[in-house]
Amino acid sequence: MAEGNELDRLRIVLVGTRNPLNLGAAARAMSNFGVLHLRVVNPYEPSFREARSAVGPASEVLAQADAFASLPEAVADCALVVGTTAIQHRELQHSMHRVDAAAEQIRRQLAHANVALVFGSEKTGLSNDDMSHCHWLLHIPTRGEHLSMNLGQSVAVTLYELVRELKSLPPVETDEPATSAELERVTTILLEALQHSGYSTPTTLSATEEKARRMVRRMDLKARDAEVLLGMLRQIVWKLRS
Amino acid sequence: MAEGNELDRLRIVLVGTRNPLNLGAAARAMSNFGVLHLRVVNPYEPSFREARSAVGPASEVLAQADAFASLPEAVADCALVVGTTAIQHRELQHSMHRVDAAAEQIRRQLAHANVALVFGSEKTGLSNDDMSHCHWLLHIPTRGEHLSMNLGQSVAVTLYELVRELKSLPPVETDEPATSAELERVTTILLEALQHSGYSTPTTLSATEEKARRMVRRMDLKARDAEVLLGMLRQIVWKLRS
Repeated sequence: MAEGNELDRLRIVLVGTRNPLNLGAAARAMSNFGVLHLRVVNPYEPSFREARSAVGPASEVLAQADAFASLPEAVADCALVVGTTAIQHRELQHSMHRVDAAAEQIRRQLAHANVALVFGSEKTGLSNDDMSHCHWLLHIPTRGEHLSMNLGQSVAVTLYELVRELKSLPPVETDEPATSAELERVTTILLEALQHSGYSTPTTLSATEEKARRMVRRMDLKARDAEVLLGMLRQIVWKLRS
Repeated sequence: MAEGNELDRLRIVLVGTRNPLNLGAAARAMSNFGVLHLRVVNPYEPSFREARSAVGPASEVLAQADAFASLPEAVADCALVVGTTAIQHRELQHSMHRVDAAAEQIRRQLAHANVALVFGSEKTGLSNDDMSHCHWLLHIPTRGEHLSMNLGQSVAVTLYELVRELKSLPPVETDEPATSAELERVTTILLEALQHSGYSTPTTLSATEEKARRMVRRMDLKARDAEVLLGMLRQIVWKLRS
């Protein structure tokens, strides 16, 4: 499979980026490495407009960028959603991979499915809710005492690592992975079952929701398994209700 | 040899950087990767002053930065001087190495001697005269049609590549996978839920059992996820029964 096709399945998703300079720097890094699909979640409109109108090396990427109201909408067509984070200030409820190991897994998925790479804002990074939509996280190893990298630099290092080996990778998995939209349907119906069974109460609902969402993302479901699981859970909910 | 000693022999040399934002971005990338010796050749004084006075993640690097009047002075104590360049717009009078191959050679030198990594300005890159002071050049492979990378991003990618093999790997989370016994408990309780909900009938029971068992095995559950899932399913079964 040609390199171009694989990179065409990659989406860079920026959440909460308010600074047009950061948007521009991320887009420029994408352009340098031939990654053209930028998605922006809930952008600050004036910044987004300013960044899009800027003439420069990344104007192609910015002009084609899509804005979404929420992260789940921005990753709905992706079978693998990878969050990026500084390792230090997180309780690791997700599995975490170093960018070089992560790149290998991402390249394998790109052989046959869409992948989203999600970056948070420079200030706050990704929220726990954002991360609950990710299958796993990647981090760039930096000095321990140092908190975060510049957004454009994180994007550049991650894409550099991803693209350098792309040319010669055979697709490995043959079973279609479930898309994020399918996983979200599983999560929703599982939550219904948990509510009807009394597992979650109104007070614990949002914590349970995050827990369930993370667990479902970690399950690495294939599309056909997601379908089976949906059928099972629907029947269970129907019975619990009656 | 300890990592600290090796990186302590590396000098990042910026030639003709006039924009304080670029200076700051380069210094921040250095700081992220634990490279602390910045040398600036013939800086535009107001920019250099502004960058040095900025409070931020790279202030340590900037405060210790040294200014030199010329490139030969800035690299006088270095046994290896490596220039960085976009590959396209140069007549290759120097040998040129891709950053990954270059990093290996640089690491070898750093084991016993000082090395300078020289970056030109974003606008013009290194001049032929600058390059004549370099032993060889390195480049970061990017899209052919694309001219140059952002300075901070070039520094980040180059140092990432250089440092990644230097340090002993930071610990990556090792999440215990669920044992077969745990998976079987999940399967059993899932089957109970399916029976009580009417999803499986006595005639379809053994086919459903196989289907559920295969699906649970494909989920790639971690031990803690198996436990969570068991708790959820137990509650659901309890409710279905009552």
